[in-house]
Amino acid sequence: MRLRNKPWAEDYLNEHPDLVVSNPEDYKGRWNELFGNDNPLHIEVGTGKGQFITGMAKANPNINYIGIELFDSVIVIAAKKAVEAGQPENLRLLNVNGSKLEEYFAKGDVSQVYLNFSDPWPKTRHAKRRLTHANFLSLYEKVLIDNGEIHFKTDNRGLFEFSLMSLTDYGMKLKLVSLDLHNDDVEDNIMTEYEEKFSSKGQPIYRLEAQFMTEK
Amino acid sequence: MRLRNKPWAEDYLNEHPDLVVSNPEDYKGRWNELFGNDNPLHIEVGTGKGQFITGMAKANPNINYIGIELFDSVIVIAAKKAVEAGQPENLRLLNVNGSKLEEYFAKGDVSQVYLNFSDPWPKTRHAKRRLTHANFLSLYEKVLIDNGEIHFKTDNRGLFEFSLMSLTDYGMKLKLVSLDLHNDDVEDNIMTEYEEKFSSKGQPIYRLEAQFMTEK
Ligand SMILES: C[S@@+](CC[C@H](N)C(=O)[O-])C[C@H]1O[C@@H](n2cnc3c(N)ncnc32)[C@H](O)[C@@H]1O
Ligand SMILES: C[S@@+](CC[C@H](N)C(=O)[O-])C[C@H]1O[C@@H](n2cnc3c(N)ncnc32)[C@H](O)[C@@H]1O
Repeated sequence: MRLRNKPWAEDYLNEHPDLVVSNPEDYKGRWNELFGNDNPLHIEVGTGKGQFITGMAKANPNINYIGIELFDSVIVIAAKKAVEAGQPENLRLLNVNGSKLEEYFAKGDVSQVYLNFSDPWPKTRHAKRRLTHANFLSLYEKVLIDNGEIHFKTDNRGLFEFSLMSLTDYGMKLKLVSLDLHNDDVEDNIMTEYEEKFSSKGQPIYRLEAQFMTEK
Repeated sequence: MRLRNKPWAEDYLNEHPDLVVSNPEDYKGRWNELFGNDNPLHIEVGTGKGQFITGMAKANPNINYIGIELFDSVIVIAAKKAVEAGQPENLRLLNVNGSKLEEYFAKGDVSQVYLNFSDPWPKTRHAKRRLTHANFLSLYEKVLIDNGEIHFKTDNRGLFEFSLMSLTDYGMKLKLVSLDLHNDDVEDNIMTEYEEKFSSKGQPIYRLEAQFMTEK
């Protein structure tokens, strides 16, 4: 199901099939054919307006990137941004639900998952909707390579606290944690739209890199 | 080796053998005899001036507490504070080095380890001195009950980031994480001297509870 309730968005997306993949299920297990190379594939779930994924694609031509976004009215902005940035060959966008990753990716298709400023769902009864909930982790694990990684940034303290517990409870190892990204020594940080907004207000940005432990 | 270079401190400590245990090795494996009950024993490594451990002992009469502090000139202040607070029966102090825990405690003697505002040792070459380094974790594990816990508070971001990685790399589970303790809903938080100082400056206080996973 594509959420294309905005006709103008639908039109733009349909006009850019080489950027916004309309039949992602057809590439399950063979994304390398679409990209024309065997470079590693990194995906972002909840891409929003696409500044991060486009920036990453331009900065790292030897990695393939796919940005996944639920709303057509949002991903259309990402698509326009990518076109304006010269439409990097190593970038694609999918207007699908991240909870259906398994329909589009086979085990090992994905080398890394990015989550940036995911919706916090602060109410306990909505915990399952958080993109770092165990149910989502098991989904990422099903499409990632062995010992694959999740890289996660957020300004939301509650979501980050939950995520630290959820990921480690799942058995993942924390490879890196920063509790104030913009005051740590970080190289090559590419900011998302939300990150620019919140860090300009002086809020700390939290970041972690966690790895699935395939040999448990 | 006791670090008793201050004669006035030494005198005060010697005058309070029922509070400051001078022969802790004699109680290894039988601290219950000293306390006269089988209540769980919680220890704090790096007690400093003792506000936390005395406060905990008064608040929780059904738990035994031991505060461990390296410096006699510091623990003497903790001792005086405990005496002024009525010297709770369930509290003892040890003027020893936390790196020698095994000499004073047998496996299972300790139910919980508290670390509060431990020295950060920010230089990488001093990482082994951090009280959350793997070497210390293995020491705590050797004296703790199965699935025992470490409860850790600090204002130091670098030390907390390191600790999250070190504890989970060791295979411990995070039971609880707060990245701004004084703005979270916490009950019964007893502040340490350092905590009062740093939180009054508006700095976030980080806290975690981590559990050893005895069945790995
Ligand atoms: C708070 S925004 C952050 C956007 C962007 N990552 C940033 O940092 O600027 C979260 C985005 O995730 C999208 N999203 C939430 N759940 C999703 C899901 N299950 N699948 C795909 N996208 C999702 C939302 O539509 C929204 O655009
Ligand atoms: C920064 S102070 C914090 C004191 C207290 N926990 C507080 O929060 O106010 C750290 C204390 O740990 C003590 N300490 C450091 N390493 C220790 C060790 N290996 N064994 C016992 N005490 C230690 C130091 O002497 C110092 O008093």
